[in-house]
Amino acid sequence: MPVVVQTIPRAAPEVIDGLARAGVATVHEAQGRRGCLQSYLRPIYAGARIAGSAVTISAPPGDNWMLHVAIEQVQPGDILVLAPTSPCDTGYFGDLLATSAMARGCRGLVIDAGVRDVRELTGMGFPVWSKAISAQGTVKETLGSVNVPVVCAGAAIEAGDVIVADDDGVVVVRQAEAAEVLARAEARMSNEEAKRKRLAAGELGLDIYDMRGRLAEKGLKYV
Amino acid sequence: MPVVVQTIPRAAPEVIDGLARAGVATVHEAQGRRGCLQSYLRPIYAGARIAGSAVTISAPPGDNWMLHVAIEQVQPGDILVLAPTSPCDTGYFGDLLATSAMARGCRGLVIDAGVRDVRELTGMGFPVWSKAISAQGTVKETLGSVNVPVVCAGAAIEAGDVIVADDDGVVVVRQAEAAEVLARAEARMSNEEAKRKRLAAGELGLDIYDMRGRLAEKGLKYV
Amino acid sequence: MPVVVQTIPRAAPEVIDGLARAGVATVHEAQGRRGCLQSYLRPIYAGARIAGSAVTISAPPGDNWMLHVAIEQVQPGDILVLAPTSPCDTGYFGDLLATSAMARGCRGLVIDAGVRDVRELTGMGFPVWSKAISAQGTVKETLGSVNVPVVCAGAAIEAGDVIVADDDGVVVVRQAEAAEVLARAEARMSNEEAKRKRLAAGELGLDIYDMRGRLAEKGLKYV
Amino acid sequence: MPVVVQTIPRAAPEVIDGLARAGVATVHEAQGRRGCLQSYLRPIYAGARIAGSAVTISAPPGDNWMLHVAIEQVQPGDILVLAPTSPCDTGYFGDLLATSAMARGCRGLVIDAGVRDVRELTGMGFPVWSKAISAQGTVKETLGSVNVPVVCAGAAIEAGDVIVADDDGVVVVRQAEAAEVLARAEARMSNEEAKRKRLAAGELGLDIYDMRGRLAEKGLKYV
Amino acid sequence: MPVVVQTIPRAAPEVIDGLARAGVATVHEAQGRRGCLQSYLRPIYAGARIAGSAVTISAPPGDNWMLHVAIEQVQPGDILVLAPTSPCDTGYFGDLLATSAMARGCRGLVIDAGVRDVRELTGMGFPVWSKAISAQGTVKETLGSVNVPVVCAGAAIEAGDVIVADDDGVVVVRQAEAAEVLARAEARMSNEEAKRKRLAAGELGLDIYDMRGRLAEKGLKYV
Amino acid sequence: MPVVVQTIPRAAPEVIDGLARAGVATVHEAQGRRGCLQSYLRPIYAGARIAGSAVTISAPPGDNWMLHVAIEQVQPGDILVLAPTSPCDTGYFGDLLATSAMARGCRGLVIDAGVRDVRELTGMGFPVWSKAISAQGTVKETLGSVNVPVVCAGAAIEAGDVIVADDDGVVVVRQAEAAEVLARAEARMSNEEAKRKRLAAGELGLDIYDMRGRLAEKGLKYV
Repeated sequence: MPVVVQTIPRAAPEVIDGLARAGVATVHEAQGRRGCLQSYLRPIYAGARIAGSAVTISAPPGDNWMLHVAIEQVQPGDILVLAPTSPCDTGYFGDLLATSAMARGCRGLVIDAGVRDVRELTGMGFPVWSKAISAQGTVKETLGSVNVPVVCAGAAIEAGDVIVADDDGVVVVRQAEAAEVLARAEARMSNEEAKRKRLAAGELGLDIYDMRGRLAEKGLKYV
Repeated sequence: MPVVVQTIPRAAPEVIDGLARAGVATVHEAQGRRGCLQSYLRPIYAGARIAGSAVTISAPPGDNWMLHVAIEQVQPGDILVLAPTSPCDTGYFGDLLATSAMARGCRGLVIDAGVRDVRELTGMGFPVWSKAISAQGTVKETLGSVNVPVVCAGAAIEAGDVIVADDDGVVVVRQAEAAEVLARAEARMSNEEAKRKRLAAGELGLDIYDMRGRLAEKGLKYV
Repeated sequence: MPVVVQTIPRAAPEVIDGLARAGVATVHEAQGRRGCLQSYLRPIYAGARIAGSAVTISAPPGDNWMLHVAIEQVQPGDILVLAPTSPCDTGYFGDLLATSAMARGCRGLVIDAGVRDVRELTGMGFPVWSKAISAQGTVKETLGSVNVPVVCAGAAIEAGDVIVADDDGVVVVRQAEAAEVLARAEARMSNEEAKRKRLAAGELGLDIYDMRGRLAEKGLKYV
Repeated sequence: MPVVVQTIPRAAPEVIDGLARAGVATVHEAQGRRGCLQSYLRPIYAGARIAGSAVTISAPPGDNWMLHVAIEQVQPGDILVLAPTSPCDTGYFGDLLATSAMARGCRGLVIDAGVRDVRELTGMGFPVWSKAISAQGTVKETLGSVNVPVVCAGAAIEAGDVIVADDDGVVVVRQAEAAEVLARAEARMSNEEAKRKRLAAGELGLDIYDMRGRLAEKGLKYV
Repeated sequence: MPVVVQTIPRAAPEVIDGLARAGVATVHEAQGRRGCLQSYLRPIYAGARIAGSAVTISAPPGDNWMLHVAIEQVQPGDILVLAPTSPCDTGYFGDLLATSAMARGCRGLVIDAGVRDVRELTGMGFPVWSKAISAQGTVKETLGSVNVPVVCAGAAIEAGDVIVADDDGVVVVRQAEAAEVLARAEARMSNEEAKRKRLAAGELGLDIYDMRGRLAEKGLKYV
Repeated sequence: MPVVVQTIPRAAPEVIDGLARAGVATVHEAQGRRGCLQSYLRPIYAGARIAGSAVTISAPPGDNWMLHVAIEQVQPGDILVLAPTSPCDTGYFGDLLATSAMARGCRGLVIDAGVRDVRELTGMGFPVWSKAISAQGTVKETLGSVNVPVVCAGAAIEAGDVIVADDDGVVVVRQAEAAEVLARAEARMSNEEAKRKRLAAGELGLDIYDMRGRLAEKGLKYV
């Protein structure tokens, strides 16, 4: 059953980069409030905002062997996404693997487990979203798979799906829907810009969004 | 039952500002080690230290409608305090709501749920103490209440109570007790300053606080 | 049963400082992937990397009396290690105790409970690895012990063991094994340096570590 | 500040007993989906369903002294409600205290902390809803208060409020609202009985509650 | 986007029933240690062991409207599977919905959220595997979807997949693979029966599975 | 480093059986409120109360190979104690291993990880205290050690230490202290019996333990 899928679909680079500019919250809204990974995934440092095609890894608990296998499959602009087959906090990934991944053009790692060498990774500018920071190391004894469908932090992800990650967390966009989601995200951003100005000027959301009638109808009382 | 209370008591501005200067740990000690919200509430960025009158919000899970309602009730110097009616990590609040709240003079948000757009909020200097950072959005379908008593992160809070928040977390001071708590906090700070100097000079707490006798009496053995 | 052990073994200062330079992840690997404290212990600020001899404290829940007792036992270069006798998040330690500890030459605190005054501690450069940040204060009513064996965040620690702590967490090294572990850590670092260069040049771990044969033998399929 | 309030209001016995018959879920709905304690409180054995007037206890972490004080305040039909001043799992209560409480007519214990001797308590038929089962014992060194307002598992509770507890958890009813909540609960139960028969006969909730139009209006598509 | 898919594939009844007999642990091993839902899902009572075709529900937090919609789609032998769109412990399901579901031939519920009326559900013999038991009720305001792919407790589930659930938890089998997994599960059970007899007679797994050579080769030392 | 220690000390059988009769809470008090494993370890069924000598296992995450090795080291009356080297919920142990362990006279398992086949284990009367119930299986690829010191659920345990486990959880007693702890436990039980009678007759702990004076002295006010 352990398998490495060597060919995966990828969204167009300009779509991927557009999704990065939109950011996680906007992208997630633009696709109908779907696709967020659970909020326990946190970035190891603040300020990174990336998007890329997912190279997925299904790995046994406490075994990082498949990361070496996966890095060979990375193309410039990709993001590694690792899901352990059972819940695990071990530190699968550190500065040596990051050096190798960066040399292949990898933009970052999303891992539903632990990471280590976070000072070095921060210094290198290699962003990671993880469940834990843990120095506890792993073995290389048991196979897993690369570029198979995984569930990572509560979201189903297929190889080639677009991953967007920033300080708000991580969201996944289906590869085939990426262009359409980007279009909706951009429309949303334009619309928000106008709202932001009115709100900054002191207008209330109650008025801008015309909520007073519906609130009254639902029974809200002011006392 | 959904209600918006439009008039709330507020402590004197100079008392509120004095409590901010004292900080969370000192205020909490000054009122008899009471009033801390649970420690899972964390600031989205380090270094903020604020105090203000609570505008409370009781909101359904995953529904941020009442935040729009609450912002209309904010007066300069207030702090929004949101408690969901059942445990929830969803991202109720982002940069648009923050823009609106800041335009009203709001000093920050304490939320027993999630927040998003943390990069933008950090850039704006709008501090939030939250249970989670989550891009997962909300709906606007179900009513809640504003300025009713809530339990937020384990603490009972009434509208107008003084909220103090800094890197150590959040503490609530009853509105009617605020001046007295400030007086005790200031006394405590003076007292601590003297202790700090003696400790920095190498004197031991065992001697400064005269603990050796009581330790021996309780049975402590040195071997 | 409450006891203060006044004499503890310590590793040689140059060994301790060497372990600090190696860092947590490397030290833990060098001793056979043993000794990590659980990953929920997190530093209150990024960038500290310390090592020192453990002055251990077994303390009741919500009672920090023994910290005052322990500080008298600290020698320059030591690290305080506190384990509560039952799980507890209370803020046992703040800036006054830190002032006292620093005056004795203490390098930091590892605590399987809460800490407070984190802004002040950060300003003083006194690093703490803790389970929680909590303003909730403690009492001084019940005895505990100092320099007895404790279990802290899942690791058994004896007084005088070497504690190494950095952004990746905390690891403990037996006092008697410290020199040998340092030797292995230094060998490991030399070896890693060579690997890092090859990986940065684009060579794959699959080739550097000669993994392809063993992967095929275990049954990995490429499709 | 430590205080024992000796006189508390209590709801009428027949109201209390009526609320017990209604059960937690119904009572909670009858008061507008308010008042549930958080769901991590679990009964130590299945099948108990009780109601009673709250005798509240605010206790330090790991210190059960105030339970002895509180038992003196118990009248037949009361329920003990203990909230620690900081989060704590220690086993505050066991078979000796239960023997004493039962001798006073106490109906059970709700505790946002730990309990022990659960085999004995089960044998005695003394029900407890707790956060943890833990043999870890406590000390008797620090005062707390009895019959003051507390927050227990996320709910604000005052002495004399009616506590209802069963296999679904625990709910609190304000003492002054108890009779009215009971009336609404009984109406709800009558109404549910008719619905139950129709549902058991195969009718759909979609039709009984006439939901199809509103679902279509909100945009639900059948494919 | 809210949609109800009315036609779903189902595995053959005798395959489904065979998988129920095999049980969760065996089925999971038979498909290569895949498919387990996370272990925090627990049965509300011990002893149930069921299998059925998944009728999936994607529901907003704290909103159980779609359960009414889903029950219309249930055919005899099906199991309801509910995943909230953000983490939630609210009690979505109780005895009225169970009465309705049983009337349609539903075998049970798997829910990554809360359930209530557990005493009644136990009495009715309607098994539920849930994340929480919670009396906290829900609203009926926001649409979700029925029979769309969901991620429930960490596992990706499509409508019509076979759900197997017992005291060990819950596992999902792809509808198209169900017959093959059953065949492997039955082979496994035959094989285990022989092993069980030898183990019961005192033979060691070390000998039955011929492990001693491989242990020695890997470097295990006996002292 | 992987090692199997074949000779371990054991306490006298009558001491071990006496500790089982005393139970977890009493034994823990008798040794000064020390030795409890953390309260998240729960029995898979109610009513078991056992004691035995610990055969310890240090195992990699998700790898149960060493259980087969450990069972060979079991003597009648022993208890298996497994601690993973990093936090893990996987189901390491099921009915086949239990069959083998029972054939060797093993009294039960304490495991800081998962267990499965709980229905079968319950039927066999083989008690387990675990962190999780999980069908998720393990591999047999990586060595660990048997009868080395471990930290299990927060307690340091050495091979041959006496483990006592019942519905209240698990406690460890040092092998060399077992007889003395039993003596103190028995004294405690006699003393408690007299107290229980007085409490059942309605006397208050306040009077039996003569607490009123000390409460007043500490400042407790009755209002």
